[in-house]
Amino acid sequence: MNSHWYAIIMAGGAGTRFWPASRRRRPKQLLALGPDTSRSLLTATVARVKAVCPSERIVIATGEHLIQATHEVVPEIPMRNVLAEPVPRNTAPCIAWATASILSRDPEAVIAVLSADHVVTSDEGFVEVINRAMTVAQTGTITTIGIVPTRPETGYGYIEAGVERGDGAKAALRFVEKPDLATAEKMLTSGNYLWNSGFFFFRGRDMMAAIDKHLPDLASGIRKIDAARDSNSETETLKQVFPLLPSVSIDVGVMEKVSPLAVVPGDFGWSDVGSWQTVWELAHRDENDNAAPSGSLLIDSRGNMVADLRASGDKKMIALLGVEDMVVVETEDALLVMPRSRSQELRKLTDALSKLGHHDKL
Amino acid sequence: MNSHWYAIIMAGGAGTRFWPASRRRRPKQLLALGPDTSRSLLTATVARVKAVCPSERIVIATGEHLIQATHEVVPEIPMRNVLAEPVPRNTAPCIAWATASILSRDPEAVIAVLSADHVVTSDEGFVEVINRAMTVAQTGTITTIGIVPTRPETGYGYIEAGVERGDGAKAALRFVEKPDLATAEKMLTSGNYLWNSGFFFFRGRDMMAAIDKHLPDLASGIRKIDAARDSNSETETLKQVFPLLPSVSIDVGVMEKVSPLAVVPGDFGWSDVGSWQTVWELAHRDENDNAAPSGSLLIDSRGNMVADLRASGDKKMIALLGVEDMVVVETEDALLVMPRSRSQELRKLTDALSKLGHHDKL
Repeated sequence: MNSHWYAIIMAGGAGTRFWPASRRRRPKQLLALGPDTSRSLLTATVARVKAVCPSERIVIATGEHLIQATHEVVPEIPMRNVLAEPVPRNTAPCIAWATASILSRDPEAVIAVLSADHVVTSDEGFVEVINRAMTVAQTGTITTIGIVPTRPETGYGYIEAGVERGDGAKAALRFVEKPDLATAEKMLTSGNYLWNSGFFFFRGRDMMAAIDKHLPDLASGIRKIDAARDSNSETETLKQVFPLLPSVSIDVGVMEKVSPLAVVPGDFGWSDVGSWQTVWELAHRDENDNAAPSGSLLIDSRGNMVADLRASGDKKMIALLGVEDMVVVETEDALLVMPRSRSQELRKLTDALSKLGHHDKL
Repeated sequence: MNSHWYAIIMAGGAGTRFWPASRRRRPKQLLALGPDTSRSLLTATVARVKAVCPSERIVIATGEHLIQATHEVVPEIPMRNVLAEPVPRNTAPCIAWATASILSRDPEAVIAVLSADHVVTSDEGFVEVINRAMTVAQTGTITTIGIVPTRPETGYGYIEAGVERGDGAKAALRFVEKPDLATAEKMLTSGNYLWNSGFFFFRGRDMMAAIDKHLPDLASGIRKIDAARDSNSETETLKQVFPLLPSVSIDVGVMEKVSPLAVVPGDFGWSDVGSWQTVWELAHRDENDNAAPSGSLLIDSRGNMVADLRASGDKKMIALLGVEDMVVVETEDALLVMPRSRSQELRKLTDALSKLGHHDKL
């Protein structure tokens, strides 16, 4: 563990893909959607990252309205390390601000950027690959992790990998948008493509230089916020400047323009947990392929994804008779029932809720 | 309305066919399972019967543990008219006790016996047929109503009807147990068979005479209870004697042995509401054949039976996406999901709950 190593965990997001569990004030990363149903995805992410750097060097970037809820699931992270974005402005402003904030503490900082809402099933594999990527980044090359694909997935972006660099990384040649199935199959067969994981590694100063070069408006905004740090006008400046920062992703704004860019292949059971279908795939399932809370009563039922995410502790008996391949999710104020195969269409429901004015349910 | 006309409404029962809505302490008749979802089946039954006799001449026979809940749904029935059976002993003891109780007030009583948990869709037809049956019973012939069958139903018992009696009734020749489909089809075609509705009509004294003759043990037990009426030992006597009364149905114990027996054909949209499937059939359904609480969100969903029977008033958003022909029932402490076609198999669930020791959910 290097004393200049830091991590930024991006924990914003207002996902609707896990309705009714996920809500504006309780997005995906605050939910226990991974195989370990005893803790939130963010809690699991922090636990994993602590193998690379300690709590006091982990910065969490989240939304202003999520500060308290975030603190509750990762109380070990000092509150001064929890950055509250006044409004969401995509990943480039988020990473730029967090990076500047870390650099103000440590100009030699080497930083790992991770998402709070992904699942990793091999913690050992994860730590090994992160260490390798940090070591490459430390030499001055912005680095990413590309997940070794296991199927022709059309839901992820890809990275084309080039020659070995001799340091465990390969040259990252280009980013590929989410492909159609035929393209995904070709990329899988070629062996040269990796899934874009959204993990990034860099020396703070390299990232700031790249932003200076490729996103000068963002850089100047961040300098204003930086200048007000620890002053009386810090909050006020943030509120004024942040909303005007260019809303652009780090992929498009920086990564696709940076050269050289290194990619470390990773294979540690990674998933971005995109839908209830994925939650079911990752979950511990019974002999009939049901993922369900203990104490549920499932008779003649197979392949179901059942979740009870009510806040209150009182036991509810969830009983299924003759039900197959369905998603059944209970929360305090909502119930969802749909075939598992329609998990990707959940937006139809949240869109309808929005149209009907049920903002309290979103 | 004849001043000697009385009604006994049988409101015991501990049905499990409507789990999780129905419970030991909240059986079917206390639930709003009919087309009118604003009132319980018992409330609707009392409202119907009041067209034939007023509240003070309606006697409700129920279980000791249901007295309070019963009073809450039909507060207009005087408490002294609500008979509390210490234990359920089938319909013959229930009717015998209630009849004796009415006779002690009015030896000339003519009594209609009805179930609290049936649905009738034509109130006018109901009143007309009840009046006819009471008029026949008044002449000294025990009378029943036979529902004109509309399909070869295998879930009901049948009554074979003979010649017209000239008073709007026919001779009732025999009772037929629930038939197989082939037999049911033959009975439907013959035109001589009616569904056994469980409605009975008699002068109180005729019923007591029939019980004296065919169930002498029951008659002597009822005399003991009768002797203690309005005395200090009334409750004690009831507790001692009632549990020892022969547990036999009025059909088997009396009706099948009585001659002559009259049957009045009835056609007033009657159903005994045997399962969630029946509730769905009776319910007001939307253009996609869904029966669901207003405010539910059903997208690409057809033929579902959705019910929210939670006691608390706070709105729960029940959302279905791409769901067909399912039963979804929410209560405070349980959730049921099953295909509508498996409504008859619900006992598998309640049996399992019982085996697993979940007595609080039964």
